[in-house]
Amino acid sequence: MNDINLDLERSARIGMPEIVYGESKSPEQLREIAARHEERGVNMLVTRCSADQVHGIEGDYDPVSRTFVCMRTAPEPQPGLVGVVYAGSSDVPVAREALVTLHFLGCETREFGDCGVAGVHRLLHHREAMTPCRVLICCAGFEGALPSILGGEMAQPIIAVPTSVGYGVAKGGHVALHGMLSSCASGITVMNIDNGCGAAMAALRILRQLQKS
Amino acid sequence: MNDINLDLERSARIGMPEIVYGESKSPEQLREIAARHEERGVNMLVTRCSADQVHGIEGDYDPVSRTFVCMRTAPEPQPGLVGVVYAGSSDVPVAREALVTLHFLGCETREFGDCGVAGVHRLLHHREAMTPCRVLICCAGFEGALPSILGGEMAQPIIAVPTSVGYGVAKGGHVALHGMLSSCASGITVMNIDNGCGAAMAALRILRQLQKS
Amino acid sequence: MNDINLDLERSARIGMPEIVYGESKSPEQLREIAARHEERGVNMLVTRCSADQVHGIEGDYDPVSRTFVCMRTAPEPQPGLVGVVYAGSSDVPVAREALVTLHFLGCETREFGDCGVAGVHRLLHHREAMTPCRVLICCAGFEGALPSILGGEMAQPIIAVPTSVGYGVAKGGHVALHGMLSSCASGITVMNIDNGCGAAMAALRILRQLQKS
Amino acid sequence: MNDINLDLERSARIGMPEIVYGESKSPEQLREIAARHEERGVNMLVTRCSADQVHGIEGDYDPVSRTFVCMRTAPEPQPGLVGVVYAGSSDVPVAREALVTLHFLGCETREFGDCGVAGVHRLLHHREAMTPCRVLICCAGFEGALPSILGGEMAQPIIAVPTSVGYGVAKGGHVALHGMLSSCASGITVMNIDNGCGAAMAALRILRQLQKS
Amino acid sequence: MNDINLDLERSARIGMPEIVYGESKSPEQLREIAARHEERGVNMLVTRCSADQVHGIEGDYDPVSRTFVCMRTAPEPQPGLVGVVYAGSSDVPVAREALVTLHFLGCETREFGDCGVAGVHRLLHHREAMTPCRVLICCAGFEGALPSILGGEMAQPIIAVPTSVGYGVAKGGHVALHGMLSSCASGITVMNIDNGCGAAMAALRILRQLQKS
Amino acid sequence: MNDINLDLERSARIGMPEIVYGESKSPEQLREIAARHEERGVNMLVTRCSADQVHGIEGDYDPVSRTFVCMRTAPEPQPGLVGVVYAGSSDVPVAREALVTLHFLGCETREFGDCGVAGVHRLLHHREAMTPCRVLICCAGFEGALPSILGGEMAQPIIAVPTSVGYGVAKGGHVALHGMLSSCASGITVMNIDNGCGAAMAALRILRQLQKS
Amino acid sequence: MNDINLDLERSARIGMPEIVYGESKSPEQLREIAARHEERGVNMLVTRCSADQVHGIEGDYDPVSRTFVCMRTAPEPQPGLVGVVYAGSSDVPVAREALVTLHFLGCETREFGDCGVAGVHRLLHHREAMTPCRVLICCAGFEGALPSILGGEMAQPIIAVPTSVGYGVAKGGHVALHGMLSSCASGITVMNIDNGCGAAMAALRILRQLQKS
Amino acid sequence: MNDINLDLERSARIGMPEIVYGESKSPEQLREIAARHEERGVNMLVTRCSADQVHGIEGDYDPVSRTFVCMRTAPEPQPGLVGVVYAGSSDVPVAREALVTLHFLGCETREFGDCGVAGVHRLLHHREAMTPCRVLICCAGFEGALPSILGGEMAQPIIAVPTSVGYGVAKGGHVALHGMLSSCASGITVMNIDNGCGAAMAALRILRQLQKS
Repeated sequence: MNDINLDLERSARIGMPEIVYGESKSPEQLREIAARHEERGVNMLVTRCSADQVHGIEGDYDPVSRTFVCMRTAPEPQPGLVGVVYAGSSDVPVAREALVTLHFLGCETREFGDCGVAGVHRLLHHREAMTPCRVLICCAGFEGALPSILGGEMAQPIIAVPTSVGYGVAKGGHVALHGMLSSCASGITVMNIDNGCGAAMAALRILRQLQKS
Repeated sequence: MNDINLDLERSARIGMPEIVYGESKSPEQLREIAARHEERGVNMLVTRCSADQVHGIEGDYDPVSRTFVCMRTAPEPQPGLVGVVYAGSSDVPVAREALVTLHFLGCETREFGDCGVAGVHRLLHHREAMTPCRVLICCAGFEGALPSILGGEMAQPIIAVPTSVGYGVAKGGHVALHGMLSSCASGITVMNIDNGCGAAMAALRILRQLQKS
Repeated sequence: MNDINLDLERSARIGMPEIVYGESKSPEQLREIAARHEERGVNMLVTRCSADQVHGIEGDYDPVSRTFVCMRTAPEPQPGLVGVVYAGSSDVPVAREALVTLHFLGCETREFGDCGVAGVHRLLHHREAMTPCRVLICCAGFEGALPSILGGEMAQPIIAVPTSVGYGVAKGGHVALHGMLSSCASGITVMNIDNGCGAAMAALRILRQLQKS
Repeated sequence: MNDINLDLERSARIGMPEIVYGESKSPEQLREIAARHEERGVNMLVTRCSADQVHGIEGDYDPVSRTFVCMRTAPEPQPGLVGVVYAGSSDVPVAREALVTLHFLGCETREFGDCGVAGVHRLLHHREAMTPCRVLICCAGFEGALPSILGGEMAQPIIAVPTSVGYGVAKGGHVALHGMLSSCASGITVMNIDNGCGAAMAALRILRQLQKS
Repeated sequence: MNDINLDLERSARIGMPEIVYGESKSPEQLREIAARHEERGVNMLVTRCSADQVHGIEGDYDPVSRTFVCMRTAPEPQPGLVGVVYAGSSDVPVAREALVTLHFLGCETREFGDCGVAGVHRLLHHREAMTPCRVLICCAGFEGALPSILGGEMAQPIIAVPTSVGYGVAKGGHVALHGMLSSCASGITVMNIDNGCGAAMAALRILRQLQKS
Repeated sequence: MNDINLDLERSARIGMPEIVYGESKSPEQLREIAARHEERGVNMLVTRCSADQVHGIEGDYDPVSRTFVCMRTAPEPQPGLVGVVYAGSSDVPVAREALVTLHFLGCETREFGDCGVAGVHRLLHHREAMTPCRVLICCAGFEGALPSILGGEMAQPIIAVPTSVGYGVAKGGHVALHGMLSSCASGITVMNIDNGCGAAMAALRILRQLQKS
Repeated sequence: MNDINLDLERSARIGMPEIVYGESKSPEQLREIAARHEERGVNMLVTRCSADQVHGIEGDYDPVSRTFVCMRTAPEPQPGLVGVVYAGSSDVPVAREALVTLHFLGCETREFGDCGVAGVHRLLHHREAMTPCRVLICCAGFEGALPSILGGEMAQPIIAVPTSVGYGVAKGGHVALHGMLSSCASGITVMNIDNGCGAAMAALRILRQLQKS
Repeated sequence: MNDINLDLERSARIGMPEIVYGESKSPEQLREIAARHEERGVNMLVTRCSADQVHGIEGDYDPVSRTFVCMRTAPEPQPGLVGVVYAGSSDVPVAREALVTLHFLGCETREFGDCGVAGVHRLLHHREAMTPCRVLICCAGFEGALPSILGGEMAQPIIAVPTSVGYGVAKGGHVALHGMLSSCASGITVMNIDNGCGAAMAALRILRQLQKS
């Protein structure tokens, strides 16, 4: 199979593991990739895959986040807690992708669900529990207003992840994305729609700096 | 000038005055329209006009909202207070257009400025003062999250007006519009971008029902 | 199931029940939500759900509007009739969602079908029958012109709901939405595409004001 | 000036004169084009031009429609009346471009202004006067609903012209265009935004067929 | 079934039959509509329907154009031939919908296939055969350039129908639609994407005028 | 002036100063805001303003970044260097807005210009100089590919800022924005178009965490 | 079957074979087309087809590129090597379509996989191997940055093909397309999304010129 | 001025000169860039600049194409003629930018104006004169159909350049761009809107290959 040329060296170069994007890969391609990871004895995370695509490969498939994890060695523990905040139960798949990736990367996490802005008190009640987090990942669909509220209340780095939850104009997550990019709260950073995994990687980049201090 | 055929009879038919949309009208067209109103002795409101367009016509021009009002008779007073809530000083022109129109229509108003969601406490502090309002008009640009918060806190009819305030993806007000349409708060109704006048007319439709009760 | 945190208190706070958005919830999540409603003895409405999603939960599923209702107590009756006007038989699912929600909320309704603007006389003939309504909800797809005609004829509050009926440029309902937002009739308010339930909630906000008078 | 190669022969080939699109042409290019028309003794119509662009060329400039006409010979009269219907005074420039072009082509016209759909009676009152027209050109901005009403009432060919009149979502005329393309009335044909001249040419194509009968 | 209110009177009013839009109707709704047509003894055409939707109703289903026809009486013959020109075999479904509708309306037709502009000679060779047509309907997908060429060669009314044929930027037919609206050929009129039926109705409006001459 | 209600308390609440968005504010509004800052003796930064808007207010206007700074006290120094990388000289205004804001916030910075990806060696040569930075802000217009390259080479948090530099499809910066959101490099976070100030605030949120360690 | 009118003469006219676009053709249409090719003894390539569509026709189906080839005679060999470069394994289907077409046209090819820009060294390592190529076809999805890097390093003609690989804003390939069109590298030409076949034809146009020299 | 870091070495690396993009550069930046070119004795081309921007720098400004050229040494002559074909006089600025760039690069050119597709004979008459060209650059606005016709008639490499000529849906050149990308003619390559300079560079990449043969 000569069309796979993994960049497993990147881990050495910048200290960030390559994560396998499963969406358009065949089961054969994924088995081959798994074999290469096995040879090197490294852990593997596949995102955006179905149970069928990874059938027969050793590891754990999570149907909610559509991720597959094969852990061979415990990941190096990262300093600092990461909070994952989300608006409603429809945002769970994206929040879960972030959580699975964070655990794969060795991060400790805390989860804050059902923080939808139509009942803003729910979010405000979590303020104290969020304070020890070093980074907040915030997932929301529909109008994507949650990071605006969060950003006015909390001082940590906030990584906003729009989710493709909604219908009519909100279908596909573009309204949430644009709402987050336009947030009147200061210093909110944004990921592509549904990119929980990328948000976890961005959190890792921040946590790595804490270690250096 | 045979290309103007005002629907002044609509007032009789459904009890709502025709308001003159000034944007693409020439000073001559506006003078002719003013003369027709004068003949009938009725009040006139022109929206989206410049001072130059209405130069020489009797009445009051407001440069902030770009409206022109000529009152000949006191408007029939409407039952019930209308609250006009807005996010920041950039939203003032649209809020002012709503206020001018409401006064033209005989409504009493209360104004709630600087309620931007990045400091959600500012909005929450106004709750009590908003309670007597029978309708709330809510103007916001950027991500347009204000109606979502308001709708979770207050029980009145809420008419959301996106404003064309913002830059980048938020330029032109489309993000605020889409955010308001996608609001996770229940029963929020929405107007076209910058349509403060229309929001006032929608409020009038509601207040008229109170009279009937 | 720790990812569900219902805002059942909102009913107490602003007097509007939380309605369950079914679209991306699993049968397990819905069963859990139903159990919570049962514990409290409150009525439950689920929108945008399939028969499979609510299989085994006690209540009535309506396949046309894709709603599920479980009534335990008669809803508090609301003052004033709500008219639901729609353009053609393709708009029935959205009109039905509005009607089901209105009944769930305790409102009396009157239905006006097949009012498409290509035969404007059909709409004009209903004028008298519409007069006693305190609010008009108006559903249309394709070019969405119905609220423009209705708004020129009737004085009540009008809540326009674009439907995702159409093809080519009209696919998805965006043309109807934009047409309604741009309506040259005064004071038309607009909901997200297919949001019949939200229109009913907006009508409830208005009817509540009648009670206060 | 070797970059102009007029297709004056097209008139011979398909019997339709070439009309000069003025928008991005320099005064020099227009003078050269005028000289070529003069040599051949043919009439010339320039659309979308400013008074400055045609300064010094013999002919009549109309600032409302931004057209310039130089008639040397009376145009061949066309059979059948063309009606030009428009919604409001903001649509006059486009309607006027259609009228100027129709006169240039030798057509008789009848004008129907202020037919906005928010007062649908105004349009219905014109029905009888429209009956002798062989083609109806219909110009409207904002939601562009006029052709839908017209198409349900009248049997003639209807050529709809969206105008770039409106603001917010209606800015630029795209909502009117899409509304007209999605019209639920049968057999409505549509032109590009503001293309009054093209509508006149389309009417000419139809009138030519009457001559043949 | 109280949600169907056919406008069968329109035929009397403007002489154009109502055609049934099948897309979102249930088999029950279509059976009811068929029964109403049967009662009155009138012909029925359903567009955009599947074989399953019309199963058990008397008439002819055409799977290529997805139309269903039930003829009870021969249609009144229309004066003048209608040409249906299309670019490639992928455009056949839309061209066929136009042809089926034209036959339903009593029109004679002539078909010109495989006229794609990448081999412009194919189109030019048909010129003579197109000359007797009184109207030309022109269907094309991808870049939709065919009407531009046709409009430069032929003098008749041209009704352009963009088809949803293409991929990448051309997916859904919007490029063809925009190309046709922007055509540099004069007097081209345009329908919504895939609207072969509407093009036939527009042709009927023109042919009706020939009868009057 | 009752329409300004600064949230100067936010600094106390989350330790981030409120920065004044100048775009749609009048000189009077800005003078009033300046006076309020002066009363409290706090520093003030105005973004997106013209020299005319701040005429007569004490402080320094920078025409390249269109920012205005009035420093009364030295800002509290922040731990860690922030690198500001940009593609070409057209991106300087946005990069400068980030730099001005960072200095206002008390951050030390290092600047890396002319790193356009068409000559990727220029970027690679800076690797060593970038290593001590704790955060990298990366500004680029056109296709916005710079963060993808940077993210594959460097391990720090990367805050990508699309700039509105480009023409044709790239006009307005949307291509750069979308390119950055779609980056195949891991963990890149993105700001709204031209939001250099927001990027600086996001960097501050990260640097604040270093202090805590 | 009278709706197929192949332009097999084009090969004679401009020396480029007509390739069959399979997407919306029925098995019957494809069998008929195959028979026509067989009569003339010419080779046939069908793109964008399923195995079912070509079932029973003699030739080779490739499921990865969804192409079908029936070779009767060896193609005339073309001068010069064509390089096909692609970013990741998700781009293989498009790259393979280009390769299959190139072989069908008689071109020699060299393949360069896994050149994603997040590890730019992988691409730089191929520089020497790319040097003998006379044309480079470059396929990438997501942000489509690969041609920008390639264009800064290599002097040959570069034909960029965006692939519909990605999610969120990158869904459908439009971000890659726009990124390639906006490339800051000089002289990059671009094809429609997923158009590997067209890229091969564009390469053929170039190689033909080499023969003439 | 430390924010300019020209890649003058690129010429050595891939044999293509860096051309200066003038759009957002200040006169000071351009003077500095000119001085650097002068030091090295190399020719300089600035695109998309105004006369004011280059005031006082030695060289020739062309107001039609908005280019500025300073030639110090005769460019190395390139093998093979390049044809520049365009649709109408509105496309001249873009065609001229391509011609100026080609002359700057040492290419011989031939110009073919007024080839608009509404009179397809004009283009067909040029066939023989186009035959000696080794590359054809083809500029068109509005529906951008010219490359489709050209591609069906001529065998050379075709580089299509959409121009921002048009109004309504065609405004900004996006319809021409999409039409060209969707062309049903084979092997047409496309540039960004108005990018005449890039087309010339792409032609140079091809001509360089002829030299090698």
